[in-house]
Amino acid sequence: MNRPQPVEKMIDIIKKLPGVGPKMAERLSYHILKMPQGEVERLIDSIQKARQTMKYCSACFNLSESDPCPICSDTAREHNIICVVETPQDLIAVSKVKDYKGLYFVLGGALSPLDAVGPDDIRIDKLLKRLKSSKITEVILATDTDSKGETTALYLAEIIKPIGITVTRLGYGLPVGGDIEYADELTISRAILGRKEM
Amino acid sequence: MNRPQPVEKMIDIIKKLPGVGPKMAERLSYHILKMPQGEVERLIDSIQKARQTMKYCSACFNLSESDPCPICSDTAREHNIICVVETPQDLIAVSKVKDYKGLYFVLGGALSPLDAVGPDDIRIDKLLKRLKSSKITEVILATDTDSKGETTALYLAEIIKPIGITVTRLGYGLPVGGDIEYADELTISRAILGRKEM
Repeated sequence: MNRPQPVEKMIDIIKKLPGVGPKMAERLSYHILKMPQGEVERLIDSIQKARQTMKYCSACFNLSESDPCPICSDTAREHNIICVVETPQDLIAVSKVKDYKGLYFVLGGALSPLDAVGPDDIRIDKLLKRLKSSKITEVILATDTDSKGETTALYLAEIIKPIGITVTRLGYGLPVGGDIEYADELTISRAILGRKEM
Repeated sequence: MNRPQPVEKMIDIIKKLPGVGPKMAERLSYHILKMPQGEVERLIDSIQKARQTMKYCSACFNLSESDPCPICSDTAREHNIICVVETPQDLIAVSKVKDYKGLYFVLGGALSPLDAVGPDDIRIDKLLKRLKSSKITEVILATDTDSKGETTALYLAEIIKPIGITVTRLGYGLPVGGDIEYADELTISRAILGRKEM
């Protein structure tokens, strides 16, 4: 006997989620079939509500309930300095550091020749447009410190410096090969204080 | 900055799924926010459809699109022998073995005093009722070979034997401490052929 078709289909779809293998997808599917109806509704509701209410800020491409997002529309922040991160999760990690009062820009990924992710696949054009149309004087590159993030930082430094904007890279304290999202606040704080011009 | 509330809520709900920690829940949530709308709809549809169409067979408590399920309503099968498993996943693993032509019964778990799972929390009463009301002559206990499954098998043997039904346990070939669901077909086949009376 094979699995009933509706279960098979649910497993097939769930196993495509990142970090979910076939066995995990099967476990999750059978768990969902056993859950009380109210819990399943809450799960689906939370997904639908998040999808409906969250949008990308048209200035920084952070996920936000409003456009522009609260950070971009905050006039008390320093609007001449911008911190470039790969993902909204990275932005939240950096924003926990009280020392930084500037703006952000979310690239939506990192350059990765092996995965066929080139400059057109992340928001490099939009970043350049933003830099040229505003009074930004410094760009802090806070991409991950793995090879993709480093490649992205080098690439960005190369194309931003000719515009006449200071380009810095988070430096002090960040462990090499790591993921910014998982770094602790103190490490990120030191990295911001110890940033170096590229 | 904290995560926006709708994202926070989605993460909170997803991290309660089995085998999903906080970091995995965050990764899944941000992935779902980035997915094309059509893919999200397919994910939700597959869950809702599986929930709507799958029901428990009232005879064996297997998950099925019909009640009774195709196995219980198959008159070509041997209706005097019943194989007791813990979960619908275990049933599918055993049913891949062509040698076995009998029926099944899904307990819905295993006895586990440490987790406060007692005889009333799995379908032992329903199994006994089924055994007493039908012409079953042999019960094959195919619970897992870990301590919970062994405890359940010993408990079931003790209460079924007095009814005058032969009780056997999958024996040959099953690795001790393992999970039936992950066993290969040949191992399960040998275990059925080498089953021993308890």
